[in-house]
This record gives sequence, structure tokens and C-alpha cells, in this order.
Amino acid sequence: MSFTLPPEGELQRVGVGSVTTEAGAAIPDPTIAFQRWGEFRGDPFGANNVLLVEHALTGDSNAAEWWCEVIGPGKALDTDTWCVICTNALGSCYGSTGPASEHPDGGRWGSRFPAISIRDQVTAEKQLLAALGLGRVRAVLGGSMGGARTLEWTLMYPEMVDYACVLAVSARASAWQIGIQTAQLSAITRDPNWHGGDYYDKPSGPDAGLAAARRLAHLTYRGELEIDERFGTSSQAGENPLGAYRDDDQRFAVQSYLDHQGVKLVERFDAGCYVTLTETLNRHDVGRGRGGLNKALASSKVPTMIVGVDTDILYPYHQQEHLSRNLGNLLAMSKLSSPVGHDAFLVEARQMDIILRKFIALTEQTPSPHDFASRSGAYDI
Amino acid sequence: MSFTLPPEGELQRVGVGSVTTEAGAAIPDPTIAFQRWGEFRGDPFGANNVLLVEHALTGDSNAAEWWCEVIGPGKALDTDTWCVICTNALGSCYGSTGPASEHPDGGRWGSRFPAISIRDQVTAEKQLLAALGLGRVRAVLGGSMGGARTLEWTLMYPEMVDYACVLAVSARASAWQIGIQTAQLSAITRDPNWHGGDYYDKPSGPDAGLAAARRLAHLTYRGELEIDERFGTSSQAGENPLGAYRDDDQRFAVQSYLDHQGVKLVERFDAGCYVTLTETLNRHDVGRGRGGLNKALASSKVPTMIVGVDTDILYPYHQQEHLSRNLGNLLAMSKLSSPVGHDAFLVEARQMDIILRKFIALTEQTPSPHDFASRSGAYDI
Repeated sequence: MSFTLPPEGELQRVGVGSVTTEAGAAIPDPTIAFQRWGEFRGDPFGANNVLLVEHALTGDSNAAEWWCEVIGPGKALDTDTWCVICTNALGSCYGSTGPASEHPDGGRWGSRFPAISIRDQVTAEKQLLAALGLGRVRAVLGGSMGGARTLEWTLMYPEMVDYACVLAVSARASAWQIGIQTAQLSAITRDPNWHGGDYYDKPSGPDAGLAAARRLAHLTYRGELEIDERFGTSSQAGENPLGAYRDDDQRFAVQSYLDHQGVKLVERFDAGCYVTLTETLNRHDVGRGRGGLNKALASSKVPTMIVGVDTDILYPYHQQEHLSRNLGNLLAMSKLSSPVGHDAFLVEARQMDIILRKFIALTEQTPSPHDFASRSGAYDI
Repeated sequence: MSFTLPPEGELQRVGVGSVTTEAGAAIPDPTIAFQRWGEFRGDPFGANNVLLVEHALTGDSNAAEWWCEVIGPGKALDTDTWCVICTNALGSCYGSTGPASEHPDGGRWGSRFPAISIRDQVTAEKQLLAALGLGRVRAVLGGSMGGARTLEWTLMYPEMVDYACVLAVSARASAWQIGIQTAQLSAITRDPNWHGGDYYDKPSGPDAGLAAARRLAHLTYRGELEIDERFGTSSQAGENPLGAYRDDDQRFAVQSYLDHQGVKLVERFDAGCYVTLTETLNRHDVGRGRGGLNKALASSKVPTMIVGVDTDILYPYHQQEHLSRNLGNLLAMSKLSSPVGHDAFLVEARQMDIILRKFIALTEQTPSPHDFASRSGAYDI
């Protein structure tokens, strides 16, 4: 078999050919970065053992790290059996092309990087697979922004996807999500160091704005039960937020924690990429141009498992129930029970282990539409 | 009877004598504004017909307007029977003393206004009643920040309160609330026009910061179901938020709606007062100095009805369940079912009518501890 992949765990960057965005802008020959774990087996254009894992907003292709409890030898996504591939999304800053990347004409992309959608990210990822010589995968899995990409995969390229597992996301952005996400964008774009997105040659970037955005975002990622159990009304050590006069430097413990989350993101992420990727979430709508939401979902052929979190305020569980009611080919439905909120799919290791083992077992018990279409698709792994 | 009140509906402002705050600052002779509806009947220091209504964060003393469905002749809080009194909270800008008020030494209070707590607001309100010659009320009722004041009334001055109705609030601020509320404070205090709170003699105040704070707050007041039903992913008329390049001026409908909420608040409210009042919510903790939360609640003697909203993300219903489990004298518990979220206690008129009629009926069926203490307290209204 001529199909080759980079050494296990090694970041590889591949030019995927030009992408024309859904809104009509051109991105000439962007790069998509990816990593893989486990040996490839099977037919690159038929039945094979590739599990394509999709990261969330500020994630990267190092899925074996950020989902270490579920990816690896003997784990739910067992790399002794499966070949796990994880790409870095278009628009991000972990090896794929985004606003912080070098522009072919010099300097950084900055404001020259167009507004992309979840679909544009899937287009670029599909072009990556084509560049690698891969025309079909056993499954696509992802949560949050990764779940949105997974869902679009099943609608844009159903012929390439045997099964899908969509976690903690909805069929489209809700008005509340757009509201809180545009508040985050506004915190960045109103930062005097934003310079319309072209701050890369300036002494400072919009760090304060990015930190403010992250503090807000974090309050939507973490359930109020979990945050309250950790911090309650405690004061930060050495500070007194209950003094006779207000003082921004005298903080509750939760303020210090959120400040820390903001600083941590500033150290590892780019503000322009954060804006670009958040915008993809605002534009997420599987119904656009497909006759509406439920018609689009009903047209889905790929057996899809839907997973949600009982305490998620960003993508409330009723949104996953909506998906489960309307998807054309529902494989299963599962709910994480957790005080953690949205991030539960990343941190509730025990429950995720059970859910993903269930997903894998179901894919082995349930024929995919491709197996019906072509019996030669059956293969032993 | 020598007890007199201002004409029905008319705003009256009364000096209440100096208030020393919980944190030890002095506020020399603040004014508290109030309005009343319905005739007073009974004994100012015994059984009488006063219902003291407490407004929410940016509310005012005009309860007959903001709670018009439930206050008035023949309504649940029937002003043919009851004498409804509503004060403007200490720290606000609707007639009571706050940061925007004139300071006795000249200029506005601004940063000279101390950080106050919910208890300080109740202290000032109690001093108002004393100044009026009123030593006891039939009931205190309020939601959100008004619910926090109501709860503190039952713990600080139980001898003055026959019954209480506490809506859409918790026994203390949660870490999540402190997180989202300090994000709002930060939006204001990082506005270049904030000037440490002393912007009153400057050409402009921190309008942009206050608007940003309100946009965030509004997302906690309104349930995502209701906002989504109204706006979904719609574009604002004449704008295209799905263009090839991001443009802050091309908005989704929900962005325009939130912008409008921000502008509306800037037109009617003061940023310094918003900071002061939000800070009281951060400091809300009935357990402080009372041996902890549940010990404080268990000590409560006043028969208290607790009301919550099933979709409230700011004060989730489990917080009202916590109150109901731990309060020393629970009168009843009721849940509003609504897509609206936190604000349901202000807008779900039909359900609030039923709940408040139930509350009034229960007060008529249930003896208050004061009735046991002094049988002379019984009276006909």
C-alpha cells in the first residue's frame, strides 16, 4: 500500500491547495498541520481504521495530549487498533494557516485573512486528506468547535465518513452563543492594541482584550457548580475584596483564577486567531443553504452518536436532544452527568471512556451506509 | 394614628441618619427615596398592612410601574387592601444617596462613596422606616438584588417582618456570579473615561464600559431559549454578518439587540452606581459573621416563601432549593416555568399573579412568630 503517514506523534504540515471560502474569499495554498498515532490499516479509499479527531476552539493537533485519557494503547480510542489523525483547524495558530501565519506577499495575514466558517475548516481538512491520499475514514469525532466540524463532515462529505461522534455542540449557533461570543470579540477588537487585526509588527498585541475574552469564555466552559465548589466566595490569598472601599486589586479567589486563565491563553494563543475561530462558531449553521436546519439534519446518512453534558450552559443539552431528534441516522445518544459543564467532554475521563468504548462497539455492530453500498468495504482490523 | 405617608405614588426623599457600613466606612446622613400605594392600616409598631417591595439591580422605587401586573387595585398585591412601600436602594441613582449624588463637601460622591453590602442597604432602609415611624411590616418581597435584601431583612430585623417572599436569588453570591459580575465591573473600570469613579466633572463618562457591562448582564438575565426564539442566527436588517471579511459593523440581530440594551441603560443609569450595586451582589453572603451559611439560614424565624425560575442561569433553581432546605421557617416553595430565565419574575405576569396570591393567602393562614409572641398582634384588615 502506497499510503504513508508521518512518524507517530510528529507534527507534519502539508500544503492543501487553495481554499475558496463559503463567503467567496480565496486563501491561496494554506497549510494544515496534523499528527497521527497508531498504524494505518485498510484501504485509503475504502474501509480502513482512521479515526479523525477534531479539536475545540483553542486546541491543537496533539490529541494524544489533550485527550490523553481516551487516546492511546488500550484506551477507548485504542491506538493498537485504530489510526488516530488530528489536524489543526484552518485559522488556528498551531501549524495551520491563520491570521498569525506568514502571508505569501510578506508580513502576517492579519486582516487579510478572511472570515471563515466551520465548513471552510472542513473543506481545508478534506483537501489535506486528499493531499495525503486518503479518501475515506472510519469515523470523525469531536466536541464543541470540533463537534461542529464533525457534524459538517457528515453533511459535506458523507461518502468519506463511515461513522461520526458529535459532542457538546448544536446544529447551529444560538443567539445566546452569538451574544456571548461577540462580547468576547468586542473585548479584543476594542483593545487599543488590536489595530484592526494588524498588530503583528507593533510593540504589543491586544493581550488585555484576549485575556478579557478568555475570562468570559471560561465562565461558559465551566459549570457554575464546579467553579463554586472550588472557590465559593473565598478571597484570594493576601487580598481583601470586602474592604471599606472597592479596589480592583483586592480580588475574590475566582477573579484571580479567571485572571490566570486569561494570562495562560495570552501566553499560548494569538488574538487574531481567537477572533477568526470564534467567528466560525458564530457562523455555525448546518441549515444554511440546505433548506433549513431540520431538512439538513434529516438528510444526514452517516450513523452519528450524539453526546451532551447535563450542566452545559454554552451548548445546553436540549440542543443535543434536538440533534438526536432530527438527524437522519442517529447511532446513539449519551449524556455526561457532571458539575463541570461544557468542558466535561475533556475532563470527565471515566464517563468519556465508557461513552467512546460504546461508540466504537456500536460502529462494529452497525453497518455503515457504505457497507451496504459496497460489500467489499468489509474488512478485518 | 400619627403615622403619615406621602401621597400615593409620589416620590419622597428622607434623610435617614448616618449609616456605618459593614466594612466600617461612614455615610453621613444619606437620603432614601420611596413611594407608596394603598392606605396604611393597623399599628405602625404592631400588626399592619405594609408590604415592603424591594427592587432589583437597576430598578427604582416605582414598583407600581415595573411590577404593574401584580401591584394595584384588585391585583395580587392588592392596593385596596395593602399598603405597598418601595424604596430606592442605598447606592442607586433614583433618589437615594449613591456615587452620583451630591457630596456634603461638594461635588459628587464618586470614589468617596464606600463599598456597601446588601446588609448596608437594609440598614439604610430600616433607618428610613424608623424615620417614618414604622417599626414593623406585614411582609417584605423582592427578586434578585431585591431578594437578597429581603433575605437579609429576615435575618437582620426578624422582629420587624411578619412574612417574606424571596424570589430568584441565593443565600450568597456564587463564584460564577462573582466571575461574570467582576467581568462587568472590569468593563467599566477599564474604560478610559472611568477616572477611578470620579468622572462626573469630565466631558464624558464611561458609557462604553457601562454598555458593555449591560450587554453581558443581559445575557445572564434572559434565558437562551427566549433569546434564541426571538433572534436565532438572523442578521440585523440591512447588515451582513456573514461577509467574506469580519466587520464589527455587520451584526447579527442579537448583537444589535444587546447593543440596544446597553445604550438604553446608559441613558437611564449611572456607571458609578452600577459598580456600587454590582459590588453589593458580589458581597452577598448571609453566612458572613453568622457562623456560616446554613447556620444563618437555620436561625431564620420569619415564615418565608422561596420562588425560583427553572431556566435561570444567574441564580439557578438549585440555589432556591438550597434556601428551601435550610431556611428555619419555610412558608412555601414555587417554581416559575419559563424560557425567559432570571427575568421571569418580572415578566411572567400570569404565573407571578398565581404565586403572589398564594403567598398572600398563606400569610393569612399561617400565624407569624409575632402572633405567637403577642396575641394583640392579630388585627382585621
